[in-house]
Parts: sequence; structure tokens; C-alpha cells
Amino acid sequence: MGSRRIRGSGGKSARRAERTAISVETSKFIERSIPNIEFINLESIELIEEKAELVLETIGVKFLNNQKALKLWKEAGADVTGELVKIPRGLARKLCSTAPSRIIQHARNPKRSVEIGGKSLVLAPVYGPPFVRDLEGGRRYATLADFEKFVKLGYMSKWLHHSGGTLCEPTDVPVNKRHLDMLFAHMIYSDKPFMGSVTEPSRARDSIEMVKILFGEEFVKKNTVLTSLININSPLTFDSIMMGAMEEYVASNQACIISPFIVGGAMSPVSVAGTLVQVLAEVLSGVAYSQLLNPGAPVIFGAFVASIDMNSGAPTFGTPEASKILYGAGQLARRLGLPFRSGGALCGSKLPDAQAAYESANTLQTALLGGVNFMLHACGWLEGGLVSSFEKFVIDADQLGGLHKLSSGVDVSENGLAIDALNEVGPSGHFLGCKHTQMNFENAFWRSDLFDYKPFETWLDEGKRDTTELASKRVEFLLNNYSKPELDTSIEEALREFIKIKKESMPDSLV
Amino acid sequence: MGSRRIRGSGGKSARRAERTAISVETSKFIERSIPNIEFINLESIELIEEKAELVLETIGVKFLNNQKALKLWKEAGADVTGELVKIPRGLARKLCSTAPSRIIQHARNPKRSVEIGGKSLVLAPVYGPPFVRDLEGGRRYATLADFEKFVKLGYMSKWLHHSGGTLCEPTDVPVNKRHLDMLFAHMIYSDKPFMGSVTEPSRARDSIEMVKILFGEEFVKKNTVLTSLININSPLTFDSIMMGAMEEYVASNQACIISPFIVGGAMSPVSVAGTLVQVLAEVLSGVAYSQLLNPGAPVIFGAFVASIDMNSGAPTFGTPEASKILYGAGQLARRLGLPFRSGGALCGSKLPDAQAAYESANTLQTALLGGVNFMLHACGWLEGGLVSSFEKFVIDADQLGGLHKLSSGVDVSENGLAIDALNEVGPSGHFLGCKHTQMNFENAFWRSDLFDYKPFETWLDEGKRDTTELASKRVEFLLNNYSKPELDTSIEEALREFIKIKKESMPDSLV
Repeated sequence: MGSRRIRGSGGKSARRAERTAISVETSKFIERSIPNIEFINLESIELIEEKAELVLETIGVKFLNNQKALKLWKEAGADVTGELVKIPRGLARKLCSTAPSRIIQHARNPKRSVEIGGKSLVLAPVYGPPFVRDLEGGRRYATLADFEKFVKLGYMSKWLHHSGGTLCEPTDVPVNKRHLDMLFAHMIYSDKPFMGSVTEPSRARDSIEMVKILFGEEFVKKNTVLTSLININSPLTFDSIMMGAMEEYVASNQACIISPFIVGGAMSPVSVAGTLVQVLAEVLSGVAYSQLLNPGAPVIFGAFVASIDMNSGAPTFGTPEASKILYGAGQLARRLGLPFRSGGALCGSKLPDAQAAYESANTLQTALLGGVNFMLHACGWLEGGLVSSFEKFVIDADQLGGLHKLSSGVDVSENGLAIDALNEVGPSGHFLGCKHTQMNFENAFWRSDLFDYKPFETWLDEGKRDTTELASKRVEFLLNNYSKPELDTSIEEALREFIKIKKESMPDSLV
Repeated sequence: MGSRRIRGSGGKSARRAERTAISVETSKFIERSIPNIEFINLESIELIEEKAELVLETIGVKFLNNQKALKLWKEAGADVTGELVKIPRGLARKLCSTAPSRIIQHARNPKRSVEIGGKSLVLAPVYGPPFVRDLEGGRRYATLADFEKFVKLGYMSKWLHHSGGTLCEPTDVPVNKRHLDMLFAHMIYSDKPFMGSVTEPSRARDSIEMVKILFGEEFVKKNTVLTSLININSPLTFDSIMMGAMEEYVASNQACIISPFIVGGAMSPVSVAGTLVQVLAEVLSGVAYSQLLNPGAPVIFGAFVASIDMNSGAPTFGTPEASKILYGAGQLARRLGLPFRSGGALCGSKLPDAQAAYESANTLQTALLGGVNFMLHACGWLEGGLVSSFEKFVIDADQLGGLHKLSSGVDVSENGLAIDALNEVGPSGHFLGCKHTQMNFENAFWRSDLFDYKPFETWLDEGKRDTTELASKRVEFLLNNYSKPELDTSIEEALREFIKIKKESMPDSLV
């Protein structure tokens, strides 16, 4: 696994062979054979759960501009005053119980379909930045051309299971038409599962229309083919745009991640336990509402949490507090029986440097051990989410291979225990040439496809390249060797036609 | 904790105040309030233990050039043939039972004494590299001046509990006299605990003589004041130099880390379980021998494990296999009731870049969760241990603050749960100004003292510095603000005299 280097070559047929090799290499989503870490003790977790109920009962949550939600909550037994909904102890948790614990999200290539829940971990790329950065061009506003490049990189990434959503904001396309081009790019340039638009209920409807063209109407009726990101306006507030998008998806049995978006200390209390109380109260009420709309609709317990630097007010990533919150939120999600979304290669650094890597690694390790089932931002995130970095995309994506390998646990078969090798080699020998090594070396140890493992002198001769420079070369190599996955041309034409009609039906808009 | 920035200032008294502030800031060793991760299931661990006994019984270990060891093993009931010692099932484990589960290593400043074992984690810097690297001077052979700088940086590092040993090889001092200068530097420029020499039994004796001068002979007789690194020549071999050094320390009740030094696939089987079998067999026999020499002598279960890149033959770090072995070795050590040494900010990269940070972070996180009690190489390690990096020293040392904070667990007191804050702020508010935030913000969230948290425009104006450049400034700042901890001048003189006499007693030597 990962031990073969893909090398450049001149011949045309060799090149085609490489392309095939790259495209078929995508790994299955992670199915952990290792335990989750139960970081917080049971007594403390129960206390947090109790306090979350107290918050729902005595403080309540707001559903802004949403008569439908207020009506449903009232009918369900909540105490509704204006836009404030106070939820009696136990009600939200009871409503949540109809949500499924595992979700299968189908990809147009069935081999790429993913299961979200249980011991699985599905990896998806960065979401949301208005800027991109690369070594040559520096930091600049993102365009649709950048977006398409990221889809292609995601498609080419062996350890990435999901094509994601807003890989970067294509700022050269009017806001009200972007979603059409983004969805088209995911559908055409990749065959991995992807996410729907949430910036307007009508755009969620467009997303559903487009997947019906891609998968067929009957298939979409019966299956989940979109997972979309519904952010809660923390603290304790559900706005009508996000809820409107969620209502569309929930009605069609498409999956929603219901996710507090929190910079601790600003949108939540400046403490780990207090933030967990709030996260749980928010997710409980959000998921409960989804189940009021459509019992059994597929939803995911989300937790995006950064901490704040009280000196500068900047959000900080890869911190111990963020890890504690992730661990705790995972425990709370498992106790609710819901799939869990958190983590990512999150960082605050402006460059893909040591800071970026340290912060990202801290979160990736935590996410694997904390039981995350769906990890957005697993690669490419830079500068607190303002920037999608081409180099960081491939650096992070390479590290995701390590998570796959770590999650597989320890083989204690006869071959794993290797007593024959110890017998063959004995004291003071070496194992490089022994039979066991020869039979196992190819897949025994993970290796990076990107990092520098060369002798010092070779590294000197090759120009003393750092990780960013190596990554820049890899981005170039992957894009040069990209080839589109096959798709029925009539489907592609129907998608183009749908987009054309949609775009012509409305004037450009900035919101 | 860590929320105050230490800023440069012109005034002399301000400068003195800063010095004091820096020197008193050193944190106590970590006492974890979080669970260890039991990565490997009990059944598999028991299988590994059983196979380790099988290896000792049927393959055996070699004690090279060591009549004393062979004699003791024979008397204890082992089957000794030539230099090969086959140990009957259960004997080594039984002998290990006299080793203490916790060790207190005293520092000359009693506030800096450390406890190694139980839930503790003691952090010590890089050990062994012949080269140093910094941003300005690049990579070069290390000198005694470099060594002294590293001692000073360690002394100034808030999150580092231990001054370490061979921070780099002072290659400008003859090999047979280096240990004297290194020990002197640890004793004079720092007041944290440190390590003894192991490159010759006579140098171990010198180390003991010197700590007798520093601590007083009576104190050293009754207390452990040195922890030294005894590497096993894996596979399954104990050489007479390392064993000779160990014999000296064990006789004086000074602590030894008994540590396989393994690049998996070369010095052990190319599998995780096979390597664990070997690690356990080696530590069992090494620790058993220490207890044959002196029952009750303080020893530590060591495991230094890298994996090999089968393409290049290079050792690789921060890999999933290295993590699995660390987790497993921790479980084996705890079941033996021994303190556990592993981990470190290990990496293969030539530069303190994203590769270095990713690899280092992977191991640091694993070491915290895997129950390591003594972590050598916790900062400054670069290029597979060939290089001590000044910048990486401060980058890693800063991250160690995150480990401290993560290990403290989650506060679920009334203040931690923050229901008052949630009540005060309510839905759609923000927490920046609320009473709970005002009372808690200073220590609530960890912040790096090094990383860039500034707005993009400020960062641009300040020259787009990456982590290495920020670290270079920090190295300069720390060294400029260093002041020596106080020490009785008569002790310093006695140490100088001892070294002078020793150096004059023998010609320079290259071994």
C-alpha cells in the first residue's frame, strides 16, 4: 500500500497505463479495527448531557423567520414564545432516536459509495475558502478554474473518499449561479460522492434536480446521494436559510450534517465543558427538528470547533482544547447513536509550513482516535479556512494514508508475529534479506508518496527542496496525468442543458 | 498558561524582570488526568507476551564479551552456551518484578525534580546528533559551543522538564573527554535533571563522580540523580560497552533506560507484532539482568522504533507502524509495572518544514496517549537524528505546551460547565464580553508562544515569515535573555578541577 512511486515517463501507452493506475487506486473508506478513545469519564459525560437538557429547557433555541419550525415544535410539545423554542427535558433526545445510525451515500461509481457511521471514517476535502494559494501564484481570489483543479486533485487522491462541496468559492461566477457550476464539476470531473448547495433553499432544490439527472429520479427517491453541510448559527440559533436548505434535503432523504460552527470563547463559553454543553444542546435541537420534518431522515452530528486566541481574537486550530471538544463530542454522538462529523487538517498558518502541519496533524490524529465518521476539510485547508492551498491539499491527502494504515490495528496472525523470522535471523543478525521480509515488505510499512526520504547528498543535489516544493511538483504531476472518469454523454448534455436554462432564468446576483 | 507574550524591551531592569519571568516559568512534569489508549486488545497482547517468552526460551539473547553477565544468568537458572543465554519461560518476568514502578530523579533545583512512572510524562530534548542546523549557518558539525546553546535553550523552555544528555556531539572535543564538558554544561547552565555518559564504563564512573560533587556524596548514595540511556544492539544482543555502563549505574542506584534501538524491517521483523515480540524479549532480558545485578535498581522500559522505507532503506518516522508499536509497547510496559520511555519529535526531514512537523506531531500525540513516562527527543530532532536543529528545538518545545494542556482532562466544575455564561449570553449573543469569559480567558485556551496568529495584512507587512523564521527569532531572543541559574562557586570550582585532572590524565582519543 503506497509503496509504489508513480514516475513520469515519455511513452504514450506508458502514460495511459499510469493514468489507469492512478484512477483505480482510490482506497475504500476507513473501517476502523481500533478502539475509540473515551477521553472524558462517564460521570462527566452524563453531567454534560444533563446540562444540555437544562439549556434546552430553560434557555431554549431560536428558529429565526421560520413559522413551519415553530409550528412543528409547538405540536411536539415545546414551549414556543416568539421565535424562542424551549424544549422539555428528554423531548429532543427522544425525537433524535428515529435518525439512522449509519448512512450509505452513493457515488455514481458504485465502488466509491461510502458508509457514514459506526466505525467508519469518510474523508472529504476543504470546504468554503474564498482564496486559493499555490507556490507560484501566491494568494489570490479563487476562480472556477481553481475549483475544477481541486475536483481533479480530489479525484486523483488515493486516500480521499469524497469529492466534497465548496472546495473554494469560484468568485468569478455570480453567487446565485455558482452552485450549478460547482455541482457540475463534481459530477463530471470525479466519480466520488459529493455535497449539495446550502446557500439558499432554491439552490438545494437545484442540487436535488441535478442529482436526479445524474443518478436517475427513481434512484434518488430511494437513496442518499448528497451529504450537505447545515451550519447552526451558534449560540443556539437556527437561521431560515440554512434551515430552508435542510428542509429541502430532509424531505428528499438526502443527508445533512447538522453542525454547530463555533470559535470557543466567541460563539460558546470559554471552556471545554461549557462548549460541549452548548454543542450538544444545538445538535439535539437541530437533529430533533430534522426528525420532526421527516422521521428517519439521515443526519450527522456535527461539531466544528476552533478555540480563540485571546491576544489577537484570531481563531486557533490544532489546540488541546479543540482536541478535547472533539473527543467529547464524539462520545456524545455515539451515545446518541448518530454518525459524527468533525476534524480536518485545520490550521491557522498563512503557509503550508511547520505551523500548518503541526496544527493539522494534531487534529487529524484526534479525529481518527475520537471516532469521527465524516471528516470535512481533511486536506487543503489553510489560514483558518480563508485559503484553499494546492500544495497543502496534496501534503494532507498523503498523510491520510497514514490514518488508513493506523486504523487497521495490529495483525497477530502467525505471519504478523513473525517467529519464523526471529528464528531465521537470531541474535545479532539483520532482517533485510530474510524470507519473512521478502514476503511482506511491499505492504508492511506505510510510506509517504510525497515526503523526502532521500540521502542528504541526493537531496542537496536536487535543490534542497522543502515539503512545499515537493508538493508543488506533485500537484503539477497529478493535474498533468488527470483523465476524466467516463460518463454517459447524454447525462452530461442533460446537465449542461439544465444549467443553461437555470442560468438564463435569473439575472446575476451577488448574494 | 502561556497566554502572556514576553516582549523585548530597552530598560535594564525590565530586562532583568523578563529573565526572572522566563526562568521561573518552567512547568512541572505532566501528571495525566486522561486515560491511556489501550490500542491492542488483551488477547493479542497476551499472545505477544507468550511469544516473547518463547523467543527467550528457544532463541535466546547474546551477552557479548561479558563473563559477569553469563555467570549471573547461569546462577539464575538460564541455559548458557558460549555467549548465548536462553531464559526459561517466566524467569525474566519474575526477575523484573523487583524493579520499581516509579522513579524520582532529583535535580539540583528541587523544584525541577521529576517522577518517572505511573501517569507521569517527563520531557527531555534531542539526544545524539553529530550535526547541528540553523537558519543562518545551515548544516554543520556540532561543537561544544552549540552544545552549550542547547543546554541554555532547554533551561529556558517552559515545557521541558529535563536537560537531557548528548544534545549534540561536541565534535571539537576529543571523544574520550567530551562527556566531561557535556556534563559540566548541564550542571552549570541548567538546574534541570540530566543524563549520564554511556560510551564507556569509565565515563559512566566519571558521571557518577561528577554528580557526587554537584549533589554531595551522601545524597547520591541515597537518591537517583542520573537517568542514562542504555541501548540494546537489536536484535537480541547486549554489548559489553553499554552493559558496562549499565553495570556502573545500576550499582549506584542511578536510573537506566533499557531500550531496544530498532529500525523495523532491518533490526526487527517487518511487522508490528513481530517487532513487539522482539522489543518485549529484549527489554525483559535487559531489565532482568539489571535486577540480577542489583534487585530494586531503577530502570525504564525503553522502545525506540522507526520503520524502514523499503524503497530507499531510510528510516521513516511518524508512521502508523511506529505509532502502533509505541501503543503496544506502552501496554506491555504497564503490564510489567515499569516506567515507559518512547516517542519524541521524530522526523526524517532535512528541514523544519511541513514534513518534519507532520512526522513529529504524529509521534508526540501518540506518546501522550500511549502512556509514555519519559520522552527523549521531545524537541530539536531533525533528519533522522543526524541533526539537532535550533529552530526545531523551539518549535517542538512550544508544542509540548499543548501536551501539558491536553493531559489535564476536562473540568466539569460549575465554572467549567459555564451554565451562567450560557444564561447570560443566550441565543444569538456572543461570549467575548460576558462575565465568565472575563474571569477565565487568561488560562482557558492554550496559545502558542511562537506560531503566527496575526491578521494577514500584519503578516505581510512583517515579511511573510514562516515558522522557521519565527523560530529563528525566538532562539535569538531566548539566548539573548539567558542567565545562569545560581550555583555555589565552590562546587563549580570543584567540578572544573575534577575535569582538569581527568583531561590531563589521558591522551586525546577518537573513540
